[in-house]
Amino acid sequence: MDTNLLKQYFTGLQDRIVSALEQFDGQAFLTDSWIRPEGGGGKSRLIEGGNFFERGGVNFSHVTGTKLPPSATAHRPELAGRSWEAMGVSLVLHPRNPYCPTSHANVRCFIASKEGEEPVWWFGGGMDLTPYYGFEEDAQHFHSTCRDALAPFGAEVYPKYKKWCDEYFFLKHRNEPRGIGGVFFDDLNEGGPGGQNPFERCFALTQAVGDNFVNAYLPILEKRRDIAYGEQERDFQAYRRGRYVEFNLVWDRGTLFGLQSGGRTESILMSLPPVVKWRYDWHPEAGSAEEKLYTDFLRPRDWV
Amino acid sequence: MDTNLLKQYFTGLQDRIVSALEQFDGQAFLTDSWIRPEGGGGKSRLIEGGNFFERGGVNFSHVTGTKLPPSATAHRPELAGRSWEAMGVSLVLHPRNPYCPTSHANVRCFIASKEGEEPVWWFGGGMDLTPYYGFEEDAQHFHSTCRDALAPFGAEVYPKYKKWCDEYFFLKHRNEPRGIGGVFFDDLNEGGPGGQNPFERCFALTQAVGDNFVNAYLPILEKRRDIAYGEQERDFQAYRRGRYVEFNLVWDRGTLFGLQSGGRTESILMSLPPVVKWRYDWHPEAGSAEEKLYTDFLRPRDWV
Repeated sequence: MDTNLLKQYFTGLQDRIVSALEQFDGQAFLTDSWIRPEGGGGKSRLIEGGNFFERGGVNFSHVTGTKLPPSATAHRPELAGRSWEAMGVSLVLHPRNPYCPTSHANVRCFIASKEGEEPVWWFGGGMDLTPYYGFEEDAQHFHSTCRDALAPFGAEVYPKYKKWCDEYFFLKHRNEPRGIGGVFFDDLNEGGPGGQNPFERCFALTQAVGDNFVNAYLPILEKRRDIAYGEQERDFQAYRRGRYVEFNLVWDRGTLFGLQSGGRTESILMSLPPVVKWRYDWHPEAGSAEEKLYTDFLRPRDWV
Repeated sequence: MDTNLLKQYFTGLQDRIVSALEQFDGQAFLTDSWIRPEGGGGKSRLIEGGNFFERGGVNFSHVTGTKLPPSATAHRPELAGRSWEAMGVSLVLHPRNPYCPTSHANVRCFIASKEGEEPVWWFGGGMDLTPYYGFEEDAQHFHSTCRDALAPFGAEVYPKYKKWCDEYFFLKHRNEPRGIGGVFFDDLNEGGPGGQNPFERCFALTQAVGDNFVNAYLPILEKRRDIAYGEQERDFQAYRRGRYVEFNLVWDRGTLFGLQSGGRTESILMSLPPVVKWRYDWHPEAGSAEEKLYTDFLRPRDWV
């Protein structure tokens, strides 16, 4: 296993995604590099007040430690105490136009090492979409891009990761999905049929997800960026963004682990929207475009 | 132990606080009563878009269960499985004027029962203040009201609960206190000197906290309500309110326990501010009024 290859892929992916987003927005992303005192560091690429994106970030991080904390190894107690490294790219984008969905993607590799033994590694990642005003064809495009990206790894992979995504991005306290889903996977460490090398296969699968994020997301933004909107749509967007905050701070394991274990707060909370509103027990009017989000999009559906 | 007495006190306290706040605001609070399918219910009193309060709530709840969950009894494993009830008043108020601080208060009693044995009970509560633009005399007034309220219960009580408050309302991921503190206590079940009845003493102490919230908070609002403000102050307020959201959703045990255990989401999240902003790695300008909040107020200080 060659971690240089991983680093090369992840940093290259970050560059490619940022370039595509910059070209789309017309405003350059800022760069903020940081070092983690306990080991490792990262490079955050950020946009705020862009022409199109109101706030967003595409972050690379590579963090290392000498002792894997027990909280990271609940399912693998045999790994506690190993030295470890985690590397990956994580992004969230909040367009200003409420007709354009928020999206999140993440690809990562985790490695636990011990002298004289083979390193243990696993991949994780995924991408998902959170519309404010939904369009069926957009959801279909997003999901079919995910399905096609994963097809080379077996027909069973997309349905499995689609379901995992629906289960993961769910606000239990609202009994409500975060959005229309996508794909999600973790603990990936499996060879392919015919004895395909496990690391090569899992790395290739992870790359397929990372490489297809732009294909899954940008065509939707292209299609919706010129839809006119007013205060009502902005208001609904700000209200729904509250759900995004609630999910990320209450349920997202990555966010909570990061915040509670001394991660870099500003990079972790780059995922939070720029302007958010809370309102008591609000419900959309019957028959409104806002209600359609709840009835037609915020429920697990087979999109492809 | 007479739970009717408790209920009478808590509902009366809610009424008195709401009346005082309504008179101050000039707009009536809404009433929303609810029933909890698993047992009990509550009455939420709410204001949104008031003349003075942008959003706020004063909630009474009395919830019961047949089996105390292990998560509620980490420190008292002998109580797991008992039937239980929890009763109390919890409030958060978000003024529109950034020169007026947000405040939170809570008083509650928890009882775990088992047939043929004495019920086990404990009180908890406190109040705390979160300014956007701080005033030393306001912090002194708030803390001296807390100190004087607790003085009859022993000179050591205020310093102990003041420290507890500083420790509890602390954002570890920001290394920053939520505000200027106040008092906080939990697990209170102690008699007084000379064999004073424990329940009577603890209930009286809890009442002293509840009864003094209006005295601690309203005079500050009276003093600051007419200070003129503009977009800059509103913007800073919205930014700082992000910290309030982060604390409540990431660290507050009551909020997390409520959300994760099927509590009434809208009543629990009444604590969240109406409009909130997040901005990457923002810092106040040196020498600004905004910086003064960080340097002079957001650090543990002896205010009285």
